[in-house]
Amino acid sequence: MKFCSSCGSQVEWRIPTGDDRERHVCGSCETIHYTNPRIITGCLPIYEDKVLLCKRAIEPRYGYWTLPAGFMENGETTAQGALRESWEEAKASIELHDLYTLFNLPYINQVYLFYRGTLNSLDFGPGVESLEVDLFKEQDIPWDELAFPVVRKTLEHYFHDRREGHYPIRTEDILFRPRRPL
Amino acid sequence: MKFCSSCGSQVEWRIPTGDDRERHVCGSCETIHYTNPRIITGCLPIYEDKVLLCKRAIEPRYGYWTLPAGFMENGETTAQGALRESWEEAKASIELHDLYTLFNLPYINQVYLFYRGTLNSLDFGPGVESLEVDLFKEQDIPWDELAFPVVRKTLEHYFHDRREGHYPIRTEDILFRPRRPL
Repeated sequence: MKFCSSCGSQVEWRIPTGDDRERHVCGSCETIHYTNPRIITGCLPIYEDKVLLCKRAIEPRYGYWTLPAGFMENGETTAQGALRESWEEAKASIELHDLYTLFNLPYINQVYLFYRGTLNSLDFGPGVESLEVDLFKEQDIPWDELAFPVVRKTLEHYFHDRREGHYPIRTEDILFRPRRPL
Repeated sequence: MKFCSSCGSQVEWRIPTGDDRERHVCGSCETIHYTNPRIITGCLPIYEDKVLLCKRAIEPRYGYWTLPAGFMENGETTAQGALRESWEEAKASIELHDLYTLFNLPYINQVYLFYRGTLNSLDFGPGVESLEVDLFKEQDIPWDELAFPVVRKTLEHYFHDRREGHYPIRTEDILFRPRRPL
């Protein structure tokens, strides 16, 4: 951030009066430009004993498998965002259940949320951000080709909790950028 | 938003190529300036059969009672933010437990999170954003003087769940600005 989005003047990086950390502050109109973490909201879509995954058609992690998820938009709820992303990436109609996992990724200022959901039908397919969409049994999950740690961890929790028969909220912090392979 | 924070030129409000909704887009350097919901993270601090509340020393809702909570900062986790706000607003040291409530407020692009927590000691007091900090038994909660619906709902859930002896994650959407009184 170099310029004030309110008046177009140059911004400074300094601690505003009464604050305790550096912010972008306009040198002219004094507007403080806060930046805050963003939410990525998504879904763990289940059909019988299978999980739906999408093969990414975009960077980062082109060609790797992921759960449908994306940046939460203004004006929607976390659940609406999860349903929207499931539609956009997998053309999947889903009945959403409880919030299931929450991951903090403070090194990139992101909070991931995944809801459990049930596929309403087998009528699904790749949206523009996906190369393929498919259903996987536990033994067929492409563990070595998953896009992100949050996807791996959500799947691991799910297969564990499915054996236990209940799905408590799972929260976890991922503090560093993962080395490859995950 | 009137000016591009990257190059200082004027921004337009239009649908970028390949997108499906209007964004602020720079007319000169083409940077798309996304805006997304913000997280407010906080705590429901418990001491024996009492709950800690803070009387607000700031607008909105000056003089009304609230749970310690505030905007999540870049570089921290949701739990770290809840602990930071508990310290800033109530000078309270807290042992945090599970995430307890999540509220969507899409009309103001906010997502509220509250963790349950236990006060480590009775050594607490008002920070600069609070007029008073006090502990309340259920029958003494100032229901008519609570600052926000998310505070009321979190307290209602808590006193209900305490009788049941378990605290499942509670998620709820608040779709409209509340009329007063709450």
